[in-house]
Amino acid sequence: MKPLEHREASAGLLPLLEELAAFGADPEGGVTRLLYTKPWTEAQHYLAGRMRQAGLSARFDRAGNLYGRLEGTDAEAGVILTGSHVDTVARGGKYDGAYGIAAGIAALAYLSRTFGPPKRTLEVVSFCEEEGSRFPVTYWGSGHVCGKQDWAIASAASDPDGITLREAMETAGFGAPEQPDCRRSDLAAYVELHIEQGIVLERGCEQIGIVETIVGQRRYAVTLAGESNHAGTTPMGLRKDALAGAAEMIAALEAMALEQGDPLVATVGRLDAEPNTPNVVAGRVRFTLDIRLDREEALARFCALALARLESIAARRGLAFEAVNWLASSPVPMDASLAALLERASEAAGLSHRRMVSGAGHDAQLMAGLCPSAMLFVPSRGGISHSPDEYTAPAQLEDGVRVLAAALHELAYR
Amino acid sequence: MKPLEHREASAGLLPLLEELAAFGADPEGGVTRLLYTKPWTEAQHYLAGRMRQAGLSARFDRAGNLYGRLEGTDAEAGVILTGSHVDTVARGGKYDGAYGIAAGIAALAYLSRTFGPPKRTLEVVSFCEEEGSRFPVTYWGSGHVCGKQDWAIASAASDPDGITLREAMETAGFGAPEQPDCRRSDLAAYVELHIEQGIVLERGCEQIGIVETIVGQRRYAVTLAGESNHAGTTPMGLRKDALAGAAEMIAALEAMALEQGDPLVATVGRLDAEPNTPNVVAGRVRFTLDIRLDREEALARFCALALARLESIAARRGLAFEAVNWLASSPVPMDASLAALLERASEAAGLSHRRMVSGAGHDAQLMAGLCPSAMLFVPSRGGISHSPDEYTAPAQLEDGVRVLAAALHELAYR
Repeated sequence: MKPLEHREASAGLLPLLEELAAFGADPEGGVTRLLYTKPWTEAQHYLAGRMRQAGLSARFDRAGNLYGRLEGTDAEAGVILTGSHVDTVARGGKYDGAYGIAAGIAALAYLSRTFGPPKRTLEVVSFCEEEGSRFPVTYWGSGHVCGKQDWAIASAASDPDGITLREAMETAGFGAPEQPDCRRSDLAAYVELHIEQGIVLERGCEQIGIVETIVGQRRYAVTLAGESNHAGTTPMGLRKDALAGAAEMIAALEAMALEQGDPLVATVGRLDAEPNTPNVVAGRVRFTLDIRLDREEALARFCALALARLESIAARRGLAFEAVNWLASSPVPMDASLAALLERASEAAGLSHRRMVSGAGHDAQLMAGLCPSAMLFVPSRGGISHSPDEYTAPAQLEDGVRVLAAALHELAYR
Repeated sequence: MKPLEHREASAGLLPLLEELAAFGADPEGGVTRLLYTKPWTEAQHYLAGRMRQAGLSARFDRAGNLYGRLEGTDAEAGVILTGSHVDTVARGGKYDGAYGIAAGIAALAYLSRTFGPPKRTLEVVSFCEEEGSRFPVTYWGSGHVCGKQDWAIASAASDPDGITLREAMETAGFGAPEQPDCRRSDLAAYVELHIEQGIVLERGCEQIGIVETIVGQRRYAVTLAGESNHAGTTPMGLRKDALAGAAEMIAALEAMALEQGDPLVATVGRLDAEPNTPNVVAGRVRFTLDIRLDREEALARFCALALARLESIAARRGLAFEAVNWLASSPVPMDASLAALLERASEAAGLSHRRMVSGAGHDAQLMAGLCPSAMLFVPSRGGISHSPDEYTAPAQLEDGVRVLAAALHELAYR
């Protein structure tokens, strides 16, 4: 690789990120830009304008994915795609997703003005949806690109206000059969730049993370049914306390996960007790369980052991136990030669780097089924994400764009 | 004691209980009769009418406590009082409180028609409030009778709709300084009949429970503050998971309570996690702690040990810990000679009985500061109370009235 430093690649990045953050800015802090809402629609059209200003041709597909295209001289060669998703969680940060889009626009503008037209066509994508924050659907954007989403669910899925995905999509101006098809069969590579959303890079004082594998996930909804009783009049030995049972289970899960060791993570993030009253023994508890690991077989084994452990705790306590597995995804390895390319690009830019696992899901895990795909991370301060406090320093954001630009240059201009 | 069986004492009891349950009947089941609401007001006036029909003179005091009086021939002798509270929890049962009032009316009517006027005046009371379900105040009725409530808090305490206790009281027709004072100094004894609200009698196949002590209580609001992080990207060893911390604490509390043994009970009935999202490590958890025991010194010792244990768990996990003690009451022993009288009355009626601790709070614990007081229990099916499923069989309800009538006969006619 030519020792280009690509220091100019991130020109315009920071202002664009700030402008994007205005679409859905929450008065109390953070950004709420849910799929097909007004702030979302305005953001996508704003981005289309910025793509055009950057010398890219902009177009939407039927789902509302937005592409900016820098035409290559070799019409036969596959397209090199970069980008990320434009939607956010409720009161999320301004980097998750948005950074990968803004970085892609900046990098393509830089490559175009510095090196002229590429051999292979370069595109940047603003995927319409990844977070699953408005509708019970995730990867609505990249899933359509890969042929892994079904238009039929748009009529079935509703947001908390009862608006269907189809209604919302049509209101935003998308979903019509005559709009351009989402499926792509012309992609040669996908490279996604994203904030880490974790504390591995920060703790290790490293500048760039190169993802080897996106973890597999299992999510369960667990329900425990015991007996709701008066907290004063029910002796300890005669209780079927669903909350005490849940507590024992959560403690056991944590111990099992610590024993298994990194990178396995097991999280109970949500717990709802009934009646949830100080002086009443809880008769029912529902909690969620989220387990992630980068090896499918070990993940399946851990989940089986964990569920058996929970079930035995429930049985000993006389609690009815139900665990519904509502999400199961296998680990997705990233493309090895693209990862090696990102590593060389980091070296050439003089940036410290490490291979790592992504514990979060990303569009790249869908795209990997369609074309060789890669991901690179920059640090997240304190590992905080999905929060108004999400932050990555400007210099760190620029580091990521340098590596991205170098990789795109290598892929599209050689 | 004369071996009177008092089988006729409960005439009219069951219809009266059903009629009372109509005031505040919830369309989805259960009874919601909160202090000074329309159903409450209608219920108290209805009871006044039923008292008069039973040959008692009826009167309200300033707080809205209702008394029915059967005048004794000895004007110098202290008054023998029975009764309970008319208010309910939200969607409560039809026995908690109401049973003690209906039983008192039935017993006084029976004694009057069977034995004529008593030597000592007999009264039945329908206390206005005991549950603390509408305003953050408990024992608003018996507290005023005992001089342990302050009218000033009526302006400060509000219900969830922002209505002050004073406004509600005035709307219901009470609270005026010219209304009869609540304080009593003429009472010789108080005997309260109540459903057990526990499963001790049912498990023991016993018909009557005679309370030796009403437990002391400590209630705490515990807050744990950790770090909210992405569930996928935060290694187990780098977490400050407030929910995992709470789980370890709840499990430890349960183990300590079981080790201490009956009658100590320790309950975490309410738990609220933040942000309470499946894929986010909980950054903050608040939970309640309710500890009860019949010996003050042992209760204080257990609470100190429990809090020290929780604090050490929090410290080890790097969680900020706060425990606010918002309720502390000492155990209240019932009058020993009244308990012995109830025991003899149960024997005479041929009913199985046991001495026991009341794990629930009752008006009798206030009244015990004013005059010799006693409580007797009948079984609660499944120990279920504060629920539409609260149930005691008619024959069991009648058993209680027989014992109550025998005790009142012994106290007032001899």
